[in-house]
Amino acid sequence: MAEYIESLQNLADQFGKLGGVGRKSAMRMAFSVLDMTPEDAGAFAQAIIDAKEKIHLCPVCMNLTDRELCPVCDDETRDRSTICVVSDARTVMAMEKVREYRGMYHVLHGALSPLNGVTPDKLRIKELLARLEDDAVKEVIVATNADVEGEATAMYISRLLGPLGIKVTRLAYGISVGTDIEAADEVTLYRALQGRRDI
Amino acid sequence: MAEYIESLQNLADQFGKLGGVGRKSAMRMAFSVLDMTPEDAGAFAQAIIDAKEKIHLCPVCMNLTDRELCPVCDDETRDRSTICVVSDARTVMAMEKVREYRGMYHVLHGALSPLNGVTPDKLRIKELLARLEDDAVKEVIVATNADVEGEATAMYISRLLGPLGIKVTRLAYGISVGTDIEAADEVTLYRALQGRRDI
Repeated sequence: MAEYIESLQNLADQFGKLGGVGRKSAMRMAFSVLDMTPEDAGAFAQAIIDAKEKIHLCPVCMNLTDRELCPVCDDETRDRSTICVVSDARTVMAMEKVREYRGMYHVLHGALSPLNGVTPDKLRIKELLARLEDDAVKEVIVATNADVEGEATAMYISRLLGPLGIKVTRLAYGISVGTDIEAADEVTLYRALQGRRDI
Repeated sequence: MAEYIESLQNLADQFGKLGGVGRKSAMRMAFSVLDMTPEDAGAFAQAIIDAKEKIHLCPVCMNLTDRELCPVCDDETRDRSTICVVSDARTVMAMEKVREYRGMYHVLHGALSPLNGVTPDKLRIKELLARLEDDAVKEVIVATNADVEGEATAMYISRLLGPLGIKVTRLAYGISVGTDIEAADEVTLYRALQGRRDI
């Protein structure tokens, strides 16, 4: 049936291309569009075009922005002696929500995975090194994920920056706040033990 | 952070307007769009415009279509003596997937809910009555949902069509195939008992 309503099926297929959207959800979204007013549907289509056209990488930190610099690099009050290295722009968003970190960021756009062809030259590492030539940077916090690729990336960066005399740190891993200790997985518990602190 | 990247936040807001899409999923989808090529993003935007512009109601059965008639009404081989009355076009799609039903459809575009202002004149009931003036129709199968609104709609249609000498039937309700009987809810079990058949 749906396959006969070509423009509906086509729209559902487009939604299905988005990450994490299954076939049924995609069709539900396509129907939602049909329920919109023509103006709302037009605004939706325009938002897609706008986002794609306007958003580019910040030339300093490689974060996403629709202005010249990203909001962090553009903010004169941020602490330029610390750079937090992340895999993607989503992590920057998550960090910024905490409102605790006042330093800068550097977005690598991926994590090392040689088997999948992601070698160091595929990541924005040379842009990071260029930023470190300026003596202002005292500490690099590596905030890549705790999976194999994230760990490999953290290790690679730490070895690269060690000789430069810059302090390289890693986010603490441990039991999530609000999680019962008995419910934590072995790896998390192991990390929590390793990272135990005096009280 | 995201709120500073205005075009990204705007796109996420647009995805958030779709039924059943939460704030986090909407942002994930907006990022998916950024990962697309400009051509793919353009095709996505165009699919929204196309669907909205091309899809209209079939003048006979009120189902969605992007041609003159919907595929069912346009199909000469379908049995014009039976009309299956449904609340929305999604139900037509579900029924067509079974490939068992060979009759026609009529889409009401809603179910009776006087408290929410959905009175019979808000549904496509007069269009249904107009179709029944043709003597060809022998049976009307009411396939509205088993909730209060769907039941009220089924009852209303059955009382309306009774005097016209047309057979009005309702889909069987019972235990879903593949569900354990012990896991069925009380209402389903009650309906299954009421609808029991000789074996």
